[in-house]
Amino acid sequence: MSEPVYLDNAATTPVDPRVFEAMRPYWLEDWGNPSSVYSVGRRARRALDDARDRIAQLLNCRANEIVFTSCGSESDNLAIRGAALAQAEQHGWKHVVTSRIEHHAVLHACQWLEQHLGFNVTYLEVDALGRVEPAAVAAAVRPDTALVSIMYANNEIGTVQPITEIGRALKSVNAQTLFHCDAVQAGGLLPIDVQAMGVDLLALSGHKFYAPKGIGLLYVRRGTPLVHQVSGGGQERGVRAGTENVAYIVGMARALELAYAEAESRVAHVSRLRDRLIDGVQARIPGVRLTGHPTQRMPNSASFTIAGADGESLLLNLDQEGICASSGSACTSGTLEISHVLRALCLPEDEARGSLRLTTGVRTTDADVDRLLEVLPSIVERVREVTPSLVS
Amino acid sequence: MSEPVYLDNAATTPVDPRVFEAMRPYWLEDWGNPSSVYSVGRRARRALDDARDRIAQLLNCRANEIVFTSCGSESDNLAIRGAALAQAEQHGWKHVVTSRIEHHAVLHACQWLEQHLGFNVTYLEVDALGRVEPAAVAAAVRPDTALVSIMYANNEIGTVQPITEIGRALKSVNAQTLFHCDAVQAGGLLPIDVQAMGVDLLALSGHKFYAPKGIGLLYVRRGTPLVHQVSGGGQERGVRAGTENVAYIVGMARALELAYAEAESRVAHVSRLRDRLIDGVQARIPGVRLTGHPTQRMPNSASFTIAGADGESLLLNLDQEGICASSGSACTSGTLEISHVLRALCLPEDEARGSLRLTTGVRTTDADVDRLLEVLPSIVERVREVTPSLVS
Repeated sequence: MSEPVYLDNAATTPVDPRVFEAMRPYWLEDWGNPSSVYSVGRRARRALDDARDRIAQLLNCRANEIVFTSCGSESDNLAIRGAALAQAEQHGWKHVVTSRIEHHAVLHACQWLEQHLGFNVTYLEVDALGRVEPAAVAAAVRPDTALVSIMYANNEIGTVQPITEIGRALKSVNAQTLFHCDAVQAGGLLPIDVQAMGVDLLALSGHKFYAPKGIGLLYVRRGTPLVHQVSGGGQERGVRAGTENVAYIVGMARALELAYAEAESRVAHVSRLRDRLIDGVQARIPGVRLTGHPTQRMPNSASFTIAGADGESLLLNLDQEGICASSGSACTSGTLEISHVLRALCLPEDEARGSLRLTTGVRTTDADVDRLLEVLPSIVERVREVTPSLVS
Repeated sequence: MSEPVYLDNAATTPVDPRVFEAMRPYWLEDWGNPSSVYSVGRRARRALDDARDRIAQLLNCRANEIVFTSCGSESDNLAIRGAALAQAEQHGWKHVVTSRIEHHAVLHACQWLEQHLGFNVTYLEVDALGRVEPAAVAAAVRPDTALVSIMYANNEIGTVQPITEIGRALKSVNAQTLFHCDAVQAGGLLPIDVQAMGVDLLALSGHKFYAPKGIGLLYVRRGTPLVHQVSGGGQERGVRAGTENVAYIVGMARALELAYAEAESRVAHVSRLRDRLIDGVQARIPGVRLTGHPTQRMPNSASFTIAGADGESLLLNLDQEGICASSGSACTSGTLEISHVLRALCLPEDEARGSLRLTTGVRTTDADVDRLLEVLPSIVERVREVTPSLVS
């Protein structure tokens, strides 16, 4: 069988061979514990420090503002639980603001604060294109708002939020309210400059930009109150204990460097193919709606609803043709429910059930797009025939 | 310069080339997201399920009782915070029992519970050989004891605890008190059978047995109440969110299989060299005391105090001779304080300052031991000359 056509780069990306080569020595040669004082440990420490310096330079922050974690979810949880608990203990503030379309790592962390620590959370509505209004954020911020958490780009519908404006708006109401940005889906494609964005906390995950699964980071602006969530040794300046995953940290640094260095060509490539997907699907299939914002969206994300077609059936049929696609988030695939993101857009149920997300990557080719456009129309026709109508 | 003599295998171990080869396909070929429904994702899912099955068989538990984490510290924190919070919410129990010589991942997690959630923690004393008495554990357990956390083997002095007896003792007092065992240092050398040990929770870290740094696991007995600590997607049955580090999980499974398959020869090898170190150091250097238990100790651990010699100076001098050794825990190296473990043994200050830990591994050779025994006596002599006496 031929290679699968992979159109799910928002779910995960392959490891770039250059990233793999950068990591390899830290398993087989320089495998020391960076906390050890002797030569073997010092070589690991130098690699760790060097990776941190390089990442800090790319994100426009200080090296000691980068905390390495094991994934985007851990970064989001550390930011939200850590900042919320610190603010509660320092000021007695127990209110958090977020949006209805955040990733579950953010939403469930907020629910955890409600359930276990008695927090009160405001879940902001979004407009029909999935945008969070800066003015709505400002209106929701209270004197006791510990934290606002808004994502940079949505993982299901690709909508990019006006982060700088949101940050400015919330700080104008309460300068001590902390601002966390889940930038996991944006990482590697959208420009990330933590000063320009005005965030206090920002989460990234390596496997979204050709580093391996199992490594992430949290930017923590100097002076941001944060209660650590994994206690132990003094690693990561006491904010996150645990022997450092030197190889993956080096790999993530290399992957981020490559993403910045090749940003122009990568964005041009993935967005050209994305546009071919958007135009092609809309031209060939009736009853299609592009979800998310038409222009303020991830350069690699084409997301649709296909009225009258069951989303899971679309995926299974595409898979039989060797095409890898998603109905939304990989983290919740396998469930037949309409996602919380599509629910927040207030789409008709009949449309929302037929969700399809196609996300391009650096390895995606025109032939991949051709193949999708070739097989999708007949698949939609077949699936529509067997999908029971909601209007009976 | 020749290869360093590495005698710090308790701090970390190199990745076994067979483990590296087992991981490699999951970066470069089968790099899918295991939560995805299509072919590329299913291959990653199969590798993940297979690794879980194999580990469960080795530890004598069910596959769905294994939770993958990013390290031993995260495993310990999930066990302690997760179980403590669950018991507090379910029964109102806010008491925890542990020992004074646990790893900081355990001690600091307990202190976190005291500081942030109002728990009360009993820190049990140990005897001069570092043993926790089962009767002392039983005496400390109260009707409101949520959790007892005792390590399998100590990372600094190698003492192995009577885990089965401790478990039996605590359950006889309060059957609903949960029992967590930090087996991070023991993993790969001591037999681990969670049924025989009678534990509810048990933590392991891959990099202690020739898997990479950045992967760990927590055994959670079916029915054990546990509040998750990283919220998000439904990975790890909702106990630990985050896209799975498939490559490292496969690597840890392979490393654990190799450890079990080669247990007899590995233990024979590391303990023979350990005994050469213990006998040789004691024979050549006056004022040496073996710390920890003489027989109930890790097969790879030779730990001493060298009276009148500053521990850090010993390490720096050994490093200049190309020998990698430790004064105790890598996680706290660089600090000049006497460790909490040596403090708990109530050694004279003059001895405790001169701590030296030598730990052997599968790659350690007789020549490594010869080299250490050749250079240590003159180093000790030199260091003793410049170490200010405490009795002036």
